[in-house]
Amino acid sequence: MSGMIKITLPDGTIKEFNKGVTSHDVAMSISEGLARNVLSAKVNGEVWDSSRPINEDATVQLLTWNDQEGKSTFWHSSAHVLAEALEELYPGVKFGIGPPIENGFYYDVDLGDLDFGDEELAAVEKKMTELARNKNEFSRSEISKSDALKYFKDKGDEYKIELINDLEDGTITFYQQGNFTDLCRGPHIPHTGLIKAIKLMSVAGAYWRGDETRKQLTRIYGITFPKQKELSEYLERLEEAKKRDHRKLGKELELFTFSEKVGMGLPLWLPKGTILRERLENFMRKAQVKAGYDPVVTPHIGSKQLYVTSGHYEKYGADSFQPIKTPNEDEEFLLKPMNCPHHCEIYNSKPRSYKDLPVRLAEFGTVYRYEQSGELHGLTRVRGFTQDDAHIFCRPDQVKNEFVKVIDLVLYTFKALGFENYTAQVSLRDQNNKAKYIGKDELWDRAEREIQEAADERGLITVSVEGEAAFYGPKLDFMVKDALGRSWQLGTIQVDYTLPERFELEYTGSDNQKHRPVMIHRAPFGSMERFVAVLIEHCAGNFPLWLAPDQIAILPISEKYHTYAEELKTLLNEKDIRGFLDSRDEKIGRKIRDAEVKKVPFMLIVGEKEEANREISVRRHGEGDLGSMSIEEFIGHFEKNVSI
Amino acid sequence: MSGMIKITLPDGTIKEFNKGVTSHDVAMSISEGLARNVLSAKVNGEVWDSSRPINEDATVQLLTWNDQEGKSTFWHSSAHVLAEALEELYPGVKFGIGPPIENGFYYDVDLGDLDFGDEELAAVEKKMTELARNKNEFSRSEISKSDALKYFKDKGDEYKIELINDLEDGTITFYQQGNFTDLCRGPHIPHTGLIKAIKLMSVAGAYWRGDETRKQLTRIYGITFPKQKELSEYLERLEEAKKRDHRKLGKELELFTFSEKVGMGLPLWLPKGTILRERLENFMRKAQVKAGYDPVVTPHIGSKQLYVTSGHYEKYGADSFQPIKTPNEDEEFLLKPMNCPHHCEIYNSKPRSYKDLPVRLAEFGTVYRYEQSGELHGLTRVRGFTQDDAHIFCRPDQVKNEFVKVIDLVLYTFKALGFENYTAQVSLRDQNNKAKYIGKDELWDRAEREIQEAADERGLITVSVEGEAAFYGPKLDFMVKDALGRSWQLGTIQVDYTLPERFELEYTGSDNQKHRPVMIHRAPFGSMERFVAVLIEHCAGNFPLWLAPDQIAILPISEKYHTYAEELKTLLNEKDIRGFLDSRDEKIGRKIRDAEVKKVPFMLIVGEKEEANREISVRRHGEGDLGSMSIEEFIGHFEKNVSI
Repeated sequence: MSGMIKITLPDGTIKEFNKGVTSHDVAMSISEGLARNVLSAKVNGEVWDSSRPINEDATVQLLTWNDQEGKSTFWHSSAHVLAEALEELYPGVKFGIGPPIENGFYYDVDLGDLDFGDEELAAVEKKMTELARNKNEFSRSEISKSDALKYFKDKGDEYKIELINDLEDGTITFYQQGNFTDLCRGPHIPHTGLIKAIKLMSVAGAYWRGDETRKQLTRIYGITFPKQKELSEYLERLEEAKKRDHRKLGKELELFTFSEKVGMGLPLWLPKGTILRERLENFMRKAQVKAGYDPVVTPHIGSKQLYVTSGHYEKYGADSFQPIKTPNEDEEFLLKPMNCPHHCEIYNSKPRSYKDLPVRLAEFGTVYRYEQSGELHGLTRVRGFTQDDAHIFCRPDQVKNEFVKVIDLVLYTFKALGFENYTAQVSLRDQNNKAKYIGKDELWDRAEREIQEAADERGLITVSVEGEAAFYGPKLDFMVKDALGRSWQLGTIQVDYTLPERFELEYTGSDNQKHRPVMIHRAPFGSMERFVAVLIEHCAGNFPLWLAPDQIAILPISEKYHTYAEELKTLLNEKDIRGFLDSRDEKIGRKIRDAEVKKVPFMLIVGEKEEANREISVRRHGEGDLGSMSIEEFIGHFEKNVSI
Repeated sequence: MSGMIKITLPDGTIKEFNKGVTSHDVAMSISEGLARNVLSAKVNGEVWDSSRPINEDATVQLLTWNDQEGKSTFWHSSAHVLAEALEELYPGVKFGIGPPIENGFYYDVDLGDLDFGDEELAAVEKKMTELARNKNEFSRSEISKSDALKYFKDKGDEYKIELINDLEDGTITFYQQGNFTDLCRGPHIPHTGLIKAIKLMSVAGAYWRGDETRKQLTRIYGITFPKQKELSEYLERLEEAKKRDHRKLGKELELFTFSEKVGMGLPLWLPKGTILRERLENFMRKAQVKAGYDPVVTPHIGSKQLYVTSGHYEKYGADSFQPIKTPNEDEEFLLKPMNCPHHCEIYNSKPRSYKDLPVRLAEFGTVYRYEQSGELHGLTRVRGFTQDDAHIFCRPDQVKNEFVKVIDLVLYTFKALGFENYTAQVSLRDQNNKAKYIGKDELWDRAEREIQEAADERGLITVSVEGEAAFYGPKLDFMVKDALGRSWQLGTIQVDYTLPERFELEYTGSDNQKHRPVMIHRAPFGSMERFVAVLIEHCAGNFPLWLAPDQIAILPISEKYHTYAEELKTLLNEKDIRGFLDSRDEKIGRKIRDAEVKKVPFMLIVGEKEEANREISVRRHGEGDLGSMSIEEFIGHFEKNVSI
């Protein structure tokens, strides 16, 4: 051996180094600035400490704060600093596990009888900052199982002992920083000094190993950043997200509610929410009519046989809502988990010719899927939801063009609703587990190719992810970034070569022979529930004017102007401008404040002068006074602003 | 005894007659013309032969063809003439039963090995006409059980023997006309000569006594009239009703379909039907917004507890769709049979003040109720249907006014849809079976009174029917007569004092105390399914222009004019004028014929002259050619015709 090894970097560059080179050295060979920012490195696909020697040819990807895996290393190390601080402050504390999570990290600890409250949290946070400033290096050591067990027996930490007992000798490593040593696979950042900003977020109970028969430990959540500014921004975003939480705004703006008696996860749409939802539905209906869709209406149940045919019965089975029995034991029904089987039966209701295709059947179809109560969350995770569903039945040679047209519809929708930031994900089969999927190999290949081609044609930025496809076909999912930079999966387009087989769908071709049509499932909104939730959080309840449930609030200064106010309301209603008249016996200041809280776009204030001149004093939510204008001027102003 | 008896007539007149007087005599005492028309008479509440002697004081109502009971007597006698004809033509025929029905009569007969087809039916009809002309009198005789049995034993008719065996001695009567004698309770018309028009309609199989383990007899259906003209009219109406059958037109016009896989009684609305339905829904939405309703959306299931609270679980129970079980055995759901419980929960979602009432919650709510498969019929009897439902929660002092407003909405709806002929039925409790109903006595009394008052205020013609109320409250049902004179129950308004109790609904009164609101259920259409069915049959598929799924058909004379036709379509679509372009390679005559079959209101024919002058040749369905006009002229003409 020459003592030299080859390091291949992500851009394809190959560099030679002495055996035993570290990722940090590799970074230094590029620039000192880069080296300072390296948190860990992916060596031959595995994340390592940047200080760990590399002894053979390897691909190396340096990980910084800009990589999710870099962040994970950073937060994992921060968990160790949290543990170190706890041990310094509360000697004898015992430790469970302390992993990084999506945003930050936690450590599960056994604090004995200690009452761990806000004060303690602040003290630990302070101690962590102190320890971070020490710039203690994280050092890795391999240790035998017996030595590892001895270490924690001496320390009296039964949790770590239990963890070690499950490990194989020869695979165990310890990490040490400062005076603290932990059982840990790593990797870690070079030293604690990189952690410049620390915030312990909250404390919760957590059963040891998630087993509710075992001891409840204290879970301490925290987050850290390499810069103080990043922490401040994070906390601001968090505060903003709380304010925009669709469950909170949904209540404040009276959009929807839940009832224990009706059942968890089954939203009740209140009048204002229903108006919003109907406007969205009408928007989509109009766009769909233009795009050549035919509306249909189908029931919310289907015979069990329907879902045996479709394969859904086999797929959903025992985890779902169970079959509905009837007085006739031969008749069993299922709540529909999907609209497709019904639409297949409509397709099948008459003979189709190649000239009739594509047939595009659209329905705002409410479907029901059982979710564990713990999984339910506001409108984003529910047990009943309405899809803006449609199924396109077309010839194989029409698939790509239809796909392109659906992409256009989705992008038109995003634009109208103010989602300007999106990417798309092509969800493909897991090539290693093809048994999971229904349908022939060559059909899947073709579908996967055509989705990508259509996306490329429309210039979508796409990533392909293997193993993310639905069991009946590959799909294109849109990922939308909201105003807070959070990603949401909205809108799905899916090729399906399977249901046409199962339902024996046919058309007569120009060759006078029977052929199988191809099916495309699509839902630009996805579901009304989820879409409205995302929209609420995206616009913080300040809906585009055309969508706002109350577009105007008419605020008479006193009861004397109620007649004029009523007249105004009737006039505006006739122009399809909707809202309410606040006829309460309250000061105008209070009425304005309340309308601002309700985020009503236009406040129309009427008093003596306004009535005399047949004018309105107009106030725009979030903008303030627009001055006086005639009723006609206001209508003109409104109509200019309301267009999509 | 004086030998004289008092006869009280329906108008209150009391006349004295000799004991033994007949109803025919009573009629003669009024006028000979009347006497000729008397078919039977109700004597002290029981229908008798008009020739039967009356031996004590009695109320007498003379029955003619204008009374349903008069018709029944006529058709019962006609059944005997049918039997007489059969016996003459097929000696040895055995007879089951031969009752009058809603339209006509039948006789179940055992014809042995005879193959009874159209030819035989015609022969029997001819023979009946002959026998009727004989003017044979029907004569009644009381007979002992043993003599009766002997008569039919001699004749060898085991069916009559079985019937007689079930009768008590001393109650048995025979009727005879001409050479034919039958076991019969009567009554009958004076003589066969009154039967001037006879039509045997059809033949079917029918098990003896409805028991499928017993012999299948031949059921012969017929109908008769006192005038030939009435028979002709009846047959025409029947022909017309067949043509208008919504199941037939629903298929021809592609409005809806059923699928065995989806399940019986679960309609699938096809594109054209959906457009029709959406137009109706939008019509109602608009009217409801104007009337101060708030739209809501609720799920199609609710926890079992919800329906235990509402009382529906107890009421529907074992005859209905059974509870939906889930992986969590504590959670059971029911398909919703009614929308009211969900709306109650929305009412309960926030505190309400007396100033907030009435709260009017409206939803096109799809509900599911199990019906035996034999009961299902097209769209009029289904297992899932969408109610144009709303619930009004109001103060007790608002009930009557709200009721009046709902009546106005219902009448507005009838007018817009062309139903000009209606009455209303006030459905009251069965006073003798109060245990059937939920709710307190005094609440029922009040509700029943206020419904009547509201109906009177709007000048409705009402009948009150005891025992027809729903279990939770009395109601007002509208009975609509369609173009064929058939009555349909459409539109229901219902006061409910019960659910507010069960759901503990409250509002804070001006006295700052908690009070119970009153609930009014209402549905002007009733259900979309049933309403559309009735509408189809009422207008024979020729929907009002604003409702027609396809309002126009653009018919280019040849392919050369497709570009102009496409342009025309886009232009008209922009004006919200909907329809299709027939681009088939067919002769214009064929295209017109097909559009006429599809009942498209306007056919727009375009050829060389039309393209050159930017005109259209307009043809109106059922009216013919309207001549050429410019596109603008047509739009004007359309818009004048489309308004509701």
